[in-house]
Amino acid sequence: MRVEEEELFNKYFKNLSQRERAIFEGGIKLGAIFHQFIGTPVSKKNKDLLERAIEESIKNQPFVYDIKVKIKNVSERYKALSEDMLDVDLIIKVSNVKAYLKLEYVKELSYPLMYVKKVEE
Amino acid sequence: MRVEEEELFNKYFKNLSQRERAIFEGGIKLGAIFHQFIGTPVSKKNKDLLERAIEESIKNQPFVYDIKVKIKNVSERYKALSEDMLDVDLIIKVSNVKAYLKLEYVKELSYPLMYVKKVEE
Amino acid sequence: MRVEEEELFNKYFKNLSQRERAIFEGGIKLGAIFHQFIGTPVSKKNKDLLERAIEESIKNQPFVYDIKVKIKNVSERYKALSEDMLDVDLIIKVSNVKAYLKLEYVKELSYPLMYVKKVEE
Amino acid sequence: MRVEEEELFNKYFKNLSQRERAIFEGGIKLGAIFHQFIGTPVSKKNKDLLERAIEESIKNQPFVYDIKVKIKNVSERYKALSEDMLDVDLIIKVSNVKAYLKLEYVKELSYPLMYVKKVEE
Repeated sequence: MRVEEEELFNKYFKNLSQRERAIFEGGIKLGAIFHQFIGTPVSKKNKDLLERAIEESIKNQPFVYDIKVKIKNVSERYKALSEDMLDVDLIIKVSNVKAYLKLEYVKELSYPLMYVKKVEE
Repeated sequence: MRVEEEELFNKYFKNLSQRERAIFEGGIKLGAIFHQFIGTPVSKKNKDLLERAIEESIKNQPFVYDIKVKIKNVSERYKALSEDMLDVDLIIKVSNVKAYLKLEYVKELSYPLMYVKKVEE
Repeated sequence: MRVEEEELFNKYFKNLSQRERAIFEGGIKLGAIFHQFIGTPVSKKNKDLLERAIEESIKNQPFVYDIKVKIKNVSERYKALSEDMLDVDLIIKVSNVKAYLKLEYVKELSYPLMYVKKVEE
Repeated sequence: MRVEEEELFNKYFKNLSQRERAIFEGGIKLGAIFHQFIGTPVSKKNKDLLERAIEESIKNQPFVYDIKVKIKNVSERYKALSEDMLDVDLIIKVSNVKAYLKLEYVKELSYPLMYVKKVEE
C-alpha cells in the first residue's frame, strides 16, 4: 500500500490503539475465512492445495503477518468444508504489536471458536 | 447461552479486556457478513427481505446488540451482491462496553472498509 | 427481461432444447443455493426469514417458476447452515416445459443430492 | 465412487438421458463455482494458486472430466473476486457424452453467463 493511501485508511482508525487495531483486524480475517470457504468441496486430493489457497488469499488483506491453515477430518470422498474442519493460526502485525489468533472447532463447546491466544507488544 | 457454557467460552478470552473483546467480536461479524453474503442475487424486489435476513442471521452470534444492514445501488434487474453495495451499522455489547462498528464502501479508497466508529464504556 | 435482451441471451442457447434448457437452469440454481448460503448462521429465531430470503433471492434468476426452501434440523442455539439442513423444491419453466428439481440430504448416501424429479412438456 | 454407491445415486436419475444428465451436472458446477468463490480476496500474487484451487475443488464433484479456471482483471492490489472476473471452461463426461460448458462475463449483457457450448455424443 502506498503511503498516501495508508494515511487515508488510518484516519478511520484513530480511536483504536495499535493493540486494539491488531485484535480488530484479526477478528475480520477469521470471520472472513470461515464464511468465504465453508462449503468448498474438499477431499484428500485437494486438501493441501485448498489450505495454501486460503492462506495466500488472506495474506492479501492488510496486517496479515503469517497464517497457517489446516483442514481436518478430510476423507477420500469429498465433502463440503464444514465448521468442524477448519483450523487456523493467524498472526496480525500492526506496527510493533503482534496478535496471535486461532480458529478451531472446540468439541466441548460444539463450536468453531475464534479467539486471541496472546498479544505481544 | 447458559451460564456454564458461557464460562467455558470465557476461559478463552481472559487475555482481552471487555473493550478489546467488543472490538474483536465486531471484527468477526463484519468479516462474516461480507464473505457470507457477497454474491447473493439481489434486485429491488428482494432487497428489503435480504437486508432483514442478514440482520437476523447475524443477531444469532454472540454479543450483537443491534445491527442495521442497507443494500445500496440496487437496480430493477438483479445482480450478485457486490462489495460496493453493503452498508452495515453494528453495535456489539460486552458487559458495559458498547462498540459501534461500520462496514461501508469508501469511494476514495475503492474499498469496502470495516472500522470502529466509537467505543462507549 | 426486455425482448431485445432476451434475444441476446438466447443466441447462447440454440444448441439446447427447451427441456434441456430447463434442466440446465435448474442445475445452476441448486448449485448456487447450496454454495451461497451454506455457512449462514441459523437458529429457530431466523429460520423462517432465512428460508424466505433464499427463495426470493433465487426468484430473481431467470426461469424460476416456483421455489420452496426448508431448513431442517434447526436448534435453539444457532449454527452454520450445513449440507444436511437444506431442503429445496424448485420448478423451472422454459416456454412450455416445467422441470421439477430437488435438493435434499440423502442419509443413505450421506450426500446433499441435487436431482430432477420430473419434467413436464 | 464404488459401484454400489453409484447405483444408489443412479436411481435418482432414471428420468434423464445421459445427455441431459451431463447438462444438469454442468449447471450445478457452474452455479457452485460462482457462488462459492465470489468474494475471495485475489491479487496478482495469489491469482494462479486460486485458479488451481478452484479447479481441483470442483474436480472432486461427480462427472467433471476437465476444468480450466481463469481469473481476469486482477490488479496488484487485492479485491474481492467479482462476477466480471471469472472465466471457466468445463467439460462434463457422463458415459459417452461430453458436455462443454462455459462461464464468462458477457459485456454486452453485463452478465456472468453460464451456457453449454456443445455436447458430443
